[in-house]
Amino acid sequence: MRLDVSTYTLDLTIPFAIARGTTSRHEICIVEIEFDGITGYGEASPSSYYNDDIEKARRFILNSSAKLGDDPFAIEKISRALLSVENYSPSGKAAIEIALFDLVGKILGKPLFKILGLSQLEPPLTSFTVGVEDLESARRRLEFLKTFPILKVKLGFGDEVGLLQFLKSETDAILRADVNEGWDTGEAIEKINMFREEFDIEFFEQPLRKEDFKGYSEIRKETDAMIIVDESVKSAADVLKWAEVVDGINIKLMKSGGILEALRMITVARSLGLKVMLGCMVESSIGISAAASLSPLVDFCDLDGNLLINNDPFDGVKAFGGKIVLTDAPGLGLKRV
Amino acid sequence: MRLDVSTYTLDLTIPFAIARGTTSRHEICIVEIEFDGITGYGEASPSSYYNDDIEKARRFILNSSAKLGDDPFAIEKISRALLSVENYSPSGKAAIEIALFDLVGKILGKPLFKILGLSQLEPPLTSFTVGVEDLESARRRLEFLKTFPILKVKLGFGDEVGLLQFLKSETDAILRADVNEGWDTGEAIEKINMFREEFDIEFFEQPLRKEDFKGYSEIRKETDAMIIVDESVKSAADVLKWAEVVDGINIKLMKSGGILEALRMITVARSLGLKVMLGCMVESSIGISAAASLSPLVDFCDLDGNLLINNDPFDGVKAFGGKIVLTDAPGLGLKRV
Repeated sequence: MRLDVSTYTLDLTIPFAIARGTTSRHEICIVEIEFDGITGYGEASPSSYYNDDIEKARRFILNSSAKLGDDPFAIEKISRALLSVENYSPSGKAAIEIALFDLVGKILGKPLFKILGLSQLEPPLTSFTVGVEDLESARRRLEFLKTFPILKVKLGFGDEVGLLQFLKSETDAILRADVNEGWDTGEAIEKINMFREEFDIEFFEQPLRKEDFKGYSEIRKETDAMIIVDESVKSAADVLKWAEVVDGINIKLMKSGGILEALRMITVARSLGLKVMLGCMVESSIGISAAASLSPLVDFCDLDGNLLINNDPFDGVKAFGGKIVLTDAPGLGLKRV
Repeated sequence: MRLDVSTYTLDLTIPFAIARGTTSRHEICIVEIEFDGITGYGEASPSSYYNDDIEKARRFILNSSAKLGDDPFAIEKISRALLSVENYSPSGKAAIEIALFDLVGKILGKPLFKILGLSQLEPPLTSFTVGVEDLESARRRLEFLKTFPILKVKLGFGDEVGLLQFLKSETDAILRADVNEGWDTGEAIEKINMFREEFDIEFFEQPLRKEDFKGYSEIRKETDAMIIVDESVKSAADVLKWAEVVDGINIKLMKSGGILEALRMITVARSLGLKVMLGCMVESSIGISAAASLSPLVDFCDLDGNLLINNDPFDGVKAFGGKIVLTDAPGLGLKRV
């Protein structure tokens, strides 16, 4: 197999703000793995939060080339070998796994979700993330926001109550909250109970710092709200650790290091009776289409990364109106724009 | 999809004895699922120990027919639907899953282990089970037994020491012990420490009754031997429960209800750091070939079910000399004899 990697800058439709900062463009790596005249595409969308960056991802992908061999059906073996490539980049590993699964799907002439045995299962509706800095920006985008049945609202900074009030009164959407570690324990217990009562929030994602196990167990004692962790869980082993104090997990290919560990996280979470959410970074349609292929297995989707950009290099699964539509196109069903 | 089921009686080469009884023939169901001119084969090898029997399996399979639909790639959905078919038969469910995976492999033109991404991984050597009633019978078969690099010795009854002494002195095989619940706690601790020291036993399988959690935790305190449970674990949820007191699990398709739950058991066990073994009942080459397709994922194999019979209706994976050879034939690689 022959591997190529290039970098590409995604332009965000509007600047994207969460509790930790604001961004208006985002660099990704696009990977191509070619075998027998067929090309599989992968994407690395690195996040500094996971000790990852574009240069690290690019180097990891290039160094991984030697581990590929000449059998695309050896995904499990290749995935294990990637763990020993130096300067580990979770998004770089994800990119290679995504490209291999796209390639295998194209070789077999079937979409990935069918190869995984997931045909005829309806994926859950996906939320759209409201990462606006202020009420003004949400007001300007209201018409677009109203096309989504579920909105995930970034809290933990700014005028939280104002934004929730606005969305509750101006849309019919189900509201979910993503705090990105923005609260401390006391504040979290108070706000979770208040917001849940007042705005009927479906669940609260990562209210506290990612390592604050004690804080999460206190929240569990003081509220009945559904609590989901995202930053806290990167692997199936993490899921085992956090099961005791939370209700669910958010899985992202760019932190799990790809599709295989994501599938393992889903399996372990299910065995523990946890809810499972599938999320994303700011990503092109490559990463989103890969995640969407697993979406029939989960309870909640937040696969809006490719709706946040205006220069998507590929056409693939796009969840306009919250609806994930998986097609019969082979692999990830991608077409270059 | 169109389903057919028939029963077939496997004749055992020699009567097979374990701690719970002796048997010389074994009835199975053979399932055929046909779609678009292609036929997938499955097998149910029911065991009364798991509240299963041949008539129950046959009825379950017939009643499951209505859940099949017309999309072989909907394995996950069909598998879930089978859980609600009345009079659940784990081997019946396994038979349908096995037939569907064989069918999908044939549609895609690839062997199941490749579709699962397991190419280029070496399966572990498989053991051959010495289920003899007495030393005489082992002596008569010695030449055959010597062709296997690993022997799994059924203990818990008869002249345990005599049999172990004979096999240790007359063969070069690694010895494993399978007690099938035959000991009590005090006896187990004494024998495990003694046999391990004297005969270098690699691990001890199911020394105590399947529900004796307390007994297993006592064994763990009193020996360093590797302890594996078989009868205790039928599902991924069971694996979570037993992880605390044992070192590994033995998975069988006929108790897990098929390939999907077996894969989940492997994933959960791995996340918990447990060793994984893949075993079988007395089975034809259908069931053994299905299990062999997962074998690259496990540490220990005991896939000798089709070597114990003299009227195998199919040719498939046969681990003569302990070596599992996976071929490029589509699906399970079966041929009618």
